[in-house]
Amino acid sequence: MTESVSQQNTEGRRFASFDALRDAWRDLPSGDADAVATVNARQTELTKPPGSLGRLEDLVAWLARWGRGGPKLDRVEVLVFAGNHGVTAQGVSAYPAAVTAQMVANFAAGGAAINQLARGAGATLKVVPLMLDQPTADFTQAPAMDEREFLDAVAAGYNAVSPNADLLCLGEMGIGNTTAAAAVCAALFGGGGARWAGRGTGVDDHGLTRKVTAIEAGLARHAALSDPLRIAAALGGRELAAILGAALSARQRRIPVLLDGFVCTAAVAPAFKLRTDALDHVQAAHVSAEAAHRMLLEELKLKPLLDLGMRLGEASGAAVAVSLLRAALACHTGMATFAEAQVANKPH
Amino acid sequence: MTESVSQQNTEGRRFASFDALRDAWRDLPSGDADAVATVNARQTELTKPPGSLGRLEDLVAWLARWGRGGPKLDRVEVLVFAGNHGVTAQGVSAYPAAVTAQMVANFAAGGAAINQLARGAGATLKVVPLMLDQPTADFTQAPAMDEREFLDAVAAGYNAVSPNADLLCLGEMGIGNTTAAAAVCAALFGGGGARWAGRGTGVDDHGLTRKVTAIEAGLARHAALSDPLRIAAALGGRELAAILGAALSARQRRIPVLLDGFVCTAAVAPAFKLRTDALDHVQAAHVSAEAAHRMLLEELKLKPLLDLGMRLGEASGAAVAVSLLRAALACHTGMATFAEAQVANKPH
Repeated sequence: MTESVSQQNTEGRRFASFDALRDAWRDLPSGDADAVATVNARQTELTKPPGSLGRLEDLVAWLARWGRGGPKLDRVEVLVFAGNHGVTAQGVSAYPAAVTAQMVANFAAGGAAINQLARGAGATLKVVPLMLDQPTADFTQAPAMDEREFLDAVAAGYNAVSPNADLLCLGEMGIGNTTAAAAVCAALFGGGGARWAGRGTGVDDHGLTRKVTAIEAGLARHAALSDPLRIAAALGGRELAAILGAALSARQRRIPVLLDGFVCTAAVAPAFKLRTDALDHVQAAHVSAEAAHRMLLEELKLKPLLDLGMRLGEASGAAVAVSLLRAALACHTGMATFAEAQVANKPH
Repeated sequence: MTESVSQQNTEGRRFASFDALRDAWRDLPSGDADAVATVNARQTELTKPPGSLGRLEDLVAWLARWGRGGPKLDRVEVLVFAGNHGVTAQGVSAYPAAVTAQMVANFAAGGAAINQLARGAGATLKVVPLMLDQPTADFTQAPAMDEREFLDAVAAGYNAVSPNADLLCLGEMGIGNTTAAAAVCAALFGGGGARWAGRGTGVDDHGLTRKVTAIEAGLARHAALSDPLRIAAALGGRELAAILGAALSARQRRIPVLLDGFVCTAAVAPAFKLRTDALDHVQAAHVSAEAAHRMLLEELKLKPLLDLGMRLGEASGAAVAVSLLRAALACHTGMATFAEAQVANKPH
């Protein structure tokens, strides 16, 4: 089965408090330096000039560092979290909030872009809708989530990750969530609503103005917050919280992660604020057409693999980038060495 | 059979003179505008915000425009041409010229990067070595090829293309050929050897100086030439000429083309000089680490699909980019429409 839609998992790891989650993000395993050394030694023996596969070589080393037992891609999992947002009441999106649930049904039926892309990537797709009938609070009026709601969503993401995955692609669906993502970024990195708001699914000029206004109202209302997790709870959304939890789960279980676009990247930005190497197990699959994404990637020191003007979400960019990892790994495992192929490896 | 190594095909189309080849490049079929309209109409119906798949949407339209009978990728062919270069006598490469033939043997045995990448791309790989035991003349001393030698190599490329391919990936192997490519670019676009010479497979500072000196000597010796095809014959190489022929064959047969790196792009640059829309059926698969490639793509108004710091040649970048086309086509053909999925497609 390629696609599955799971209800929020109420079993497994829970987080008792903001403090407990913060502690978890600060107590992270490091990567496997020995596996990297093994990969790099082989790279120099393969029949190509040193470094000539460029970033493909770095990607194999990264898979080795953050995976288990050397670089492999036997089990690739795409996880898409869906949530609804009270801030849509402010008219920040081109689409009605009902589209979130409609698209979850489309994922289940196999009709969305991510269905086609996950299949092409040789990945399983799991979709996790998060209480779609209970949108978060409108952050211009109140915190989007209280501590318990936020931590439940983090736990839903944490527990959705398959422990034996070799690679995890993260993505989201949620009408209004570029507004939430922009608000989180503005609170974490500064610059105000105008710096971080973009057109999302295609809002017009008036909608963009409403979006900036809503973000500014949210920033003003929650201006007292400085803790990254409290910011994520007050301005983010359940699907963002779940992505944060899934990224933590992946780090603890030694699973490398491909991030999708702006919302997905904003979701993990609080972890970077807690510990600057917290996202070392993460690659940015692409940079989206949403202008804020490029700025955010620069803040997080992440260099995107693809730049194709995509702005769909759903983990679509992450799924496309899986093919780059497969290409990199195929070269690493399949190529002949200079000795095997009797090719001269000495400058004359 | 994934890999095959073909001797130069002496059957098929021949070109009688520079003039005949020039005429062929100036009499080109245009694309299928109806197929593009069909694709674009469907794009607006699919369950995603308009344009949200970015360049993936453009790629499907491009496949439709330059293919036959709508966008498809059932038969993807990777063609790698190999040649040897008299200018290696000037000490312009980090590797001895014997490596060209050794790598062709490695291609035949399945041990090179392109073997792994073509397999991953679902492509057949055909390698065409071009008289490796008779390198072109050292262009600092004489034209690399006379008219007949050049046109025979163009014809070899032309006739190597499978007429029923849905997509053609072009690439090359040839110790010394970044020197030839840089010389062709300098003669076509100006700026001298220092602008276009790079480190190729990894030449050191002294080698780079020798490379610039050799290019300057070639430019001085052949300074009287202004015809792009005569420039390609005097300063290029057989594998570059074959790529030029293959790109012509693809245009005439309505096969879209993915170009690989700097040498491959330099090989088709003369066509752009003959007719600025001659390369409309071509996409640049990537921009390589060889700095001249980015400049050349700007000259040719080609926007690369990937930017991964690759600099191997062998069609490796083109083969990696096939996966982007497959992703684009899978979305286009597999996604549900708004009506099918009962997803709201109206701003509220």
